Order: sequence, then structure tokens, then C-alpha cells
Amino acid sequence: MLSVHLEGGAVSVRNVARPRRPEGFSLIRLLAAGICNTDLELKRGYYGFRGRPGHEFVGEVEESDNRTLVGKRVVGEINLSCRQCEWCARGLGRHCPTRKVLGIVKQPGAFAESFVLPDVNLHVVPTGVSTEHAVFAEPVAAACEILDQVRIPKGREVAVLGDGKLGLLIAQVLHAHGAKVIQFGKHPGKLGIAAAAGIETVCNPKRLPVKAFPLVVDASGSASGLAAAIGMTRPRGAVIMKSTIHDAVAINTAPVIVDEITLMGSRCGRMEPALQLLRKKALRLDDMVTGTYSLDQSPVAFAHASSSGVLKILLKTK
Amino acid sequence: MLSVHLEGGAVSVRNVARPRRPEGFSLIRLLAAGICNTDLELKRGYYGFRGRPGHEFVGEVEESDNRTLVGKRVVGEINLSCRQCEWCARGLGRHCPTRKVLGIVKQPGAFAESFVLPDVNLHVVPTGVSTEHAVFAEPVAAACEILDQVRIPKGREVAVLGDGKLGLLIAQVLHAHGAKVIQFGKHPGKLGIAAAAGIETVCNPKRLPVKAFPLVVDASGSASGLAAAIGMTRPRGAVIMKSTIHDAVAINTAPVIVDEITLMGSRCGRMEPALQLLRKKALRLDDMVTGTYSLDQSPVAFAHASSSGVLKILLKTK
Repeated sequence: MLSVHLEGGAVSVRNVARPRRPEGFSLIRLLAAGICNTDLELKRGYYGFRGRPGHEFVGEVEESDNRTLVGKRVVGEINLSCRQCEWCARGLGRHCPTRKVLGIVKQPGAFAESFVLPDVNLHVVPTGVSTEHAVFAEPVAAACEILDQVRIPKGREVAVLGDGKLGLLIAQVLHAHGAKVIQFGKHPGKLGIAAAAGIETVCNPKRLPVKAFPLVVDASGSASGLAAAIGMTRPRGAVIMKSTIHDAVAINTAPVIVDEITLMGSRCGRMEPALQLLRKKALRLDDMVTGTYSLDQSPVAFAHASSSGVLKILLKTK
Repeated sequence: MLSVHLEGGAVSVRNVARPRRPEGFSLIRLLAAGICNTDLELKRGYYGFRGRPGHEFVGEVEESDNRTLVGKRVVGEINLSCRQCEWCARGLGRHCPTRKVLGIVKQPGAFAESFVLPDVNLHVVPTGVSTEHAVFAEPVAAACEILDQVRIPKGREVAVLGDGKLGLLIAQVLHAHGAKVIQFGKHPGKLGIAAAAGIETVCNPKRLPVKAFPLVVDASGSASGLAAAIGMTRPRGAVIMKSTIHDAVAINTAPVIVDEITLMGSRCGRMEPALQLLRKKALRLDDMVTGTYSLDQSPVAFAHASSSGVLKILLKTK
């Protein structure tokens, strides 16, 4: 079967044996997958990665011990947790210290014709949600995680910094939740998607508002984003950190302390609220797909995903 | 009257006129004051400061519109807020955007024979609390602020990083609250004060524990403290930032995001819980006074406060 391989900065497509299905795992045939910024970072060698990426997927269960899953379209929780430790007992397997992570840490990813994932990680895609929308379940869950971390009353002003894929999903998720979102970005075309969803947008402002928002989400993807987000936050307000930067980031801690600002790291989220938003068609996702490639075109797809102005690039099986 | 003056890195004692008492203010005769690290920073020109410092004080009210205050020993909330804005309405005058701050921002400080502060800022020192203990009310309130910001159940493990004045007060306040405090420091003598209070202490460890604590307080006063505190924090845990560093601090944001750690700036606190702790004699404070000087000896007192291994230096009127 076809399988995407990352090594030394290069993307290749290999022909490999279909995976063996361990007990408790489902064998899943890929329908569609999304290329995420993390995949581009893995390509550059982040986490010392070498192997098969892919963690945003929709597939059809081919084989499973759980017969109710067979033939179903599924998405999946990407953290494979031990299910025995304190974290797992608390329902936070996403933080299990011995976890594997699909397509990122010690678990071959979804960019292949078939792959395996534990049955307990799978969520059946509701009827009425298209495969092209369901492929957004994982990043939408990451956006929903913010709502699990901080209480956001209806009408609360929230600034979202950045208009990339995650920034657009976060702005839409918080808008759908009822927050008064203002999204700051640099790309009129990308911000147009948020504007069409009814979100107030600001493109390339001369200066960002100072101490203006009780909550600011940094999804800028840039090293300067965190400092900018801190500057926009009111005293006693919070910054949600969604931009993983792999270099040290310099921040001035004095205003954080004087204004008693909270900085909160935020990563993966639960699939349930994400699928519910998709079922309700609460998000504008069609405009967020820039291109679709078949698995064997993965090198071109990765190159396209790396170029500027691009939103989601999908990989599909034929 | 004698008045301490900071300018261009120098400490001088001047003879100045007694201050005029505005309406709503009390005229306070200084009994004792503490030199804080912030005062040492003001001396170095932080905030572009020039003038009279002093914000940790115990005084006796000489004149006031509020007759019940006259003759009373008082300590004071250091933020002079407008009492009209949204922050003040929320009881958070400490964050009032037009606030003055005693001895720090636009309000001459307490290092003088007499000074003024609004009546509403004053708290009468309970009988039975010595002046030498009451002078710690302000930094104890800053330590208590942590308990207003995060819920700490009895028995919860908390690491305190740093064994300076504030670190020792924080460790003692959290210990008195019922937390299981472990304090990390570099000075056996200073840590001895915490140990005598029943706190577990670790001096100069070869390596700090990794991802070990649900809550870590950075009171290290060093630029490397925040990164160290983050490394000690468990996933989903929190770091309380108490070290104001006036240069940019480099932090690796990736573990903050992956482990969903919360970083929380923390500054001044309410006087009420601080005075209650002092009334209960819950803290060991006698060992924390390294030296006492009269106001006219302030240049020597500042020099002493700046030298290493020193804890609190007090200024007293004769």
C-alpha cells in the first residue's frame, strides 16, 4: 500500500506492507487527511521525526474487534494513552506521560492507504457531515480546547491574533460559542473567511490595541505573537498560547506580573464538541480547503502546503 | 522633616517641609518601614524613578478627617486608585489604570518622618501585632495574593523557587494555608528560617525535579527562574510569576503549550488576610530582619539592603 515518508527534509511515497492490527485496534482505510503545520515542522525535523506523519484524518473502519465500528466513517483522538496512569484515570490521556501520538510520536500516522488506531480513540462521524468537513475535526477540537480551559461568557470580547488555519478555526469556534470575536491578521483573503462567518476582522493595523481585551488568543505562529498578545491584554486578563514556536521566545515579564496576566498553553482538545459543531454546520470550512491531492502526490501537496497564503491542503485516496 | 531621596543611583536624606494633607487623606507619622527589592530597583532608575521611595510601612495617624483613625497604628494599601472606574468598582483598585502607587508612581513614599495616604487605604494594626511584624504586612499581602488567584487545597504540593524575602514569606503563607510546600534555594541560612517554620527545604540541588509539581511559585528574582519553574511544573499545572525581571526573559514556549501549563503574573494583594496572619502569629518574621537603621542612616541602610545574604532592612524614626 502507499505510505508517505518524511526523512531529512524530504517527502517520499513508499510502497509498504499493510499494517498488522493489534488487539483493541481498528484497521482504518484512509478517506481524506489534512496537512497541518505540525506536519510541515515534522518534515523540517522537529521532534527528531523520521517516518510517516498524519494526524488529521477521516477513514473507514475495515477491521475491528468492535463490530459496531466496521464500515463506519471515523475520526480519531490522536493521543494513544496507557489508560492506567493518574492522567488517564482523570480523563486526560492527552497528557499521559507514556503516550504515543498518531503521526507525531512513535505511532505511524494516517498518511497511508491504511493505518491502525485503538478502537477507544475512534469517533464515528455523524451522518450529514461530509468527509471534507470531518477532516477538520482534530484542529476544531484543538480550538474547542480553549472553551474547556477558560470560561467565556456570551458576548465576552476575545481577540484572535493570526489568520492561519488554526486562527480561523479558533475565531469561528469562539464566535459560534457566542463570544464577540475580533480577529487580527495580515491576509485579506483569509480574513474574508472569518468576515463571511460574521466575525469582525482587522487587517494589518498600524498598531494593535493596548490593554484592550480580557482574552487574547495567540495563533499568530510567530515568535513575536506572544509579546503582541500580552500587550493587547487587559489587567487580570488571559492569553491563550496556541502558537508552538521551536525557538526560545523573549518576553517582558514585568507587565505580565504588574497587570497579573495569565498565559495559558493550549494544545489538543476533545473530539465530542468538535463533531457537534460540524454536525450543526456552525463553521465555514469549504473556503478553507486550498487544494486536494492524491496520496501519491504527497511531495507536491507538502510543497503547496508550505507556500504562503495557503490554507488547508487535503490528501485523498483514490 | 527628614525625607529620603533617590536620584541618579544615589540615596540622600533631605530636610523638607511636612506634606500638606489633602481632603480624604491622613497625615501619618512613620514608625517603621521596610526596604524592598523594588526600592533597590527604583534606586537603579527603574520606572525612570526620581523622588522619595517607601511602600512598606507602619505609621501612626497624626491628622485625619476620620477621627477614629487619629492616634492609631496603621499599615496601608499602596495603590491610590480613582474609585470611579470599572476596576475600582470591581474592588480591584490595584489595577486602576490611573492609579498612583505610594513610593513608586507619582506619590511620595513612606521613607520620611511624615507622609500622606488616603484614609480608605489605611488598615489599623491589630493590638498584639508588633510594629516590627506589621511592617511585613505589604509583602505578606503580596504573598497572600496567590491564594486569591489559585485554589490550593490543603495538602497540595507547591514548590517555591527562591529563598529571598518574598520567597520566604510566600513559603510561610502557603504553609500556614495548609499546602505541602517545598522551598528550593541557595542560602542555607535563609532556608533555615523556612525549615524552622516546618517547611521542607532543598538547598542547591544538583538538578531540579522535572514535571513534578502541580503548582510552582517563581520567587527566584532571576531571569532563569521562570524557565526553571516551567520545567518543574506538571502538565496542566501552574507557575505563579512573582519575580519582576526588567529585561526580556527567554522562554521555550513549546513545553508550556504541549503540557498546557498556565503562567500567572502576581503582584500586590489584599491587606486583610495579611493582617489576620500577623494577628495569629502564623509567620516567623523575627529572623527575617537583618538590620535596623534610623531614617538619617538611609544611604547606609540601602547599601546594606543591596548586599548579598541580607533579608529585610528596616528604617525607623527616632
